[in-house]
Amino acid sequence: RVFAPYTIFKGKAALSAQMLSPRLSKLENGDYRVKRPGVIMLTLWPAIGERKYDWEKRQQFALSVNEVGSVISLGSKQSCEFFHDPSMKSSNEGKVRKSLSIKLHDDGSGCYFISLSVANSVLKTSDRLSVPVAASEFAVLRAAFTFALPQLLGWDQFNNQ
Amino acid sequence: RVFAPYTIFKGKAALSAQMLSPRLSKLENGDYRVKRPGVIMLTLWPAIGERKYDWEKRQQFALSVNEVGSVISLGSKQSCEFFHDPSMKSSNEGKVRKSLSIKLHDDGSGCYFISLSVANSVLKTSDRLSVPVAASEFAVLRAAFTFALPQLLGWDQFNNQ
Amino acid sequence: RVFAPYTIFKGKAALSAQMLSPRLSKLENGDYRVKRPGVIMLTLWPAIGERKYDWEKRQQFALSVNEVGSVISLGSKQSCEFFHDPSMKSSNEGKVRKSLSIKLHDDGSGCYFISLSVANSVLKTSDRLSVPVAASEFAVLRAAFTFALPQLLGWDQFNNQ
Amino acid sequence: RVFAPYTIFKGKAALSAQMLSPRLSKLENGDYRVKRPGVIMLTLWPAIGERKYDWEKRQQFALSVNEVGSVISLGSKQSCEFFHDPSMKSSNEGKVRKSLSIKLHDDGSGCYFISLSVANSVLKTSDRLSVPVAASEFAVLRAAFTFALPQLLGWDQFNNQ
Repeated sequence: RVFAPYTIFKGKAALSAQMLSPRLSKLENGDYRVKRPGVIMLTLWPAIGERKYDWEKRQQFALSVNEVGSVISLGSKQSCEFFHDPSMKSSNEGKVRKSLSIKLHDDGSGCYFISLSVANSVLKTSDRLSVPVAASEFAVLRAAFTFALPQLLGWDQFNNQ
Repeated sequence: RVFAPYTIFKGKAALSAQMLSPRLSKLENGDYRVKRPGVIMLTLWPAIGERKYDWEKRQQFALSVNEVGSVISLGSKQSCEFFHDPSMKSSNEGKVRKSLSIKLHDDGSGCYFISLSVANSVLKTSDRLSVPVAASEFAVLRAAFTFALPQLLGWDQFNNQ
Repeated sequence: RVFAPYTIFKGKAALSAQMLSPRLSKLENGDYRVKRPGVIMLTLWPAIGERKYDWEKRQQFALSVNEVGSVISLGSKQSCEFFHDPSMKSSNEGKVRKSLSIKLHDDGSGCYFISLSVANSVLKTSDRLSVPVAASEFAVLRAAFTFALPQLLGWDQFNNQ
Repeated sequence: RVFAPYTIFKGKAALSAQMLSPRLSKLENGDYRVKRPGVIMLTLWPAIGERKYDWEKRQQFALSVNEVGSVISLGSKQSCEFFHDPSMKSSNEGKVRKSLSIKLHDDGSGCYFISLSVANSVLKTSDRLSVPVAASEFAVLRAAFTFALPQLLGWDQFNNQ
């Protein structure tokens, strides 16, 4: 396996984006089927000094295929926000709430803010990590996500047929 | 083989899109030639209850390379419609008529409606299935179709030379 | 080898587009270098009846990497024209003149005309073949050319390193 | 290895662009991690006569992933400029200063000027090389850089998992 996170280090926090593979299941006749599409895992973790970051305090948000579609089609004046409950459909549903927002900075620089809020009603904690993403960095995310999308769906496996 | 449909489940019906390979034929000198380009098979099937869908009642529409070109070049104010006769050039020509329309919803949401109508003059049946496709989902379709197009043509085989 | 031309048949002529590989040369140390980039070969040939075309009367035009760059960056109101002399820098220079033009039809349909003129001053012949290309077909050409461009340069070989 | 530079020869200088691979490091468990992303190496070298260029006088500038992101997202009215110190964080820091600028020519042609200035305070030299890049050539650079970006990050290695 090859780990290839794209990482942005900024003053208050760092952000990394990394593809995670779709899961395939083998069918009875020997063919395969994509059981669960891949995701792009975003990780944010806080700065604790100059050029020092605390990985133990990281928070993660797994962008689904459709959320990746939202990000790559963001126009130059749009923002988007996604909500996840990591315990959805389990007995812990509703206890942890995550929201990821991608907002264009209104200073005309083309800079975005990517912010992740995590509220845990059991531990009574509330974290918020935010990273300013320059226009050039957002262009990298957009190009990387566009490349990733067909692979998250498993469409590149088509070649193996 | 790997099956990797991209599927959208909505209230009244579900939609899936899947690439089907081009067919190659072997030439006398051992080279290959694309005999028939691939297609993107769209399948729509109706809901019959909450989160329950009836696959037996599915209808399909095979988007040709040129129709895929139409979809990926749809501007933000355009719609398109395609007509297929699955029995074209056979004795059953004209008995079944399929039409697929992709229409932008006029509420400014960027949502599209993808609708498939199938009229069968022999069985005297007429089906219509329609799925609302969110802007983010349409972005996924567009990215996946753009990725697929050169492969439907067989241009990715170029690397094997 | 796999031949995968994208072909458009119209009333007066047919057009096909096909990638031709870059040529590599082996260096003394065992590495390779792209000696000559690939091209996209356009072939036009005339109709001689209903659904009948005369391949013997074909004319060809090899789009260079930069010409492919022109085509994929054509805006919705632009046209382009290229001139080739197949005997350039030989004793026959200037005897055959080829020009390929891609012109937007001014009826708002998004249709283009792709026309190839070949004037041969030795044989005293002058041929002109022209094919109307629908917006959807031009979208296919654009997507296929965009896919092809890095491969014409040999940049996909990078993965082999 | 395959070398596949995209080269533009103009009256006063030549420009080539070439991908350089990311560096991977092997982890203890046998997996790999991208240790350093790849770059696109730009090389400019001066003309010293008609169709003659002096490779010995070349100057180079390694575009980082984020700088490549800037270039591919350049709008039709924008320019960009990057500064590098090849000895950053060494005892020679500040002695050599490189700047690369990409500026749209204001004649409406869509032509860009790519200029590289290198000032060496030790050798007391100052070089400036500049190449006009036609709209079609810039389209090639943009398409090649867009193709390259996920590979500079190592995201194409995802398929190997």
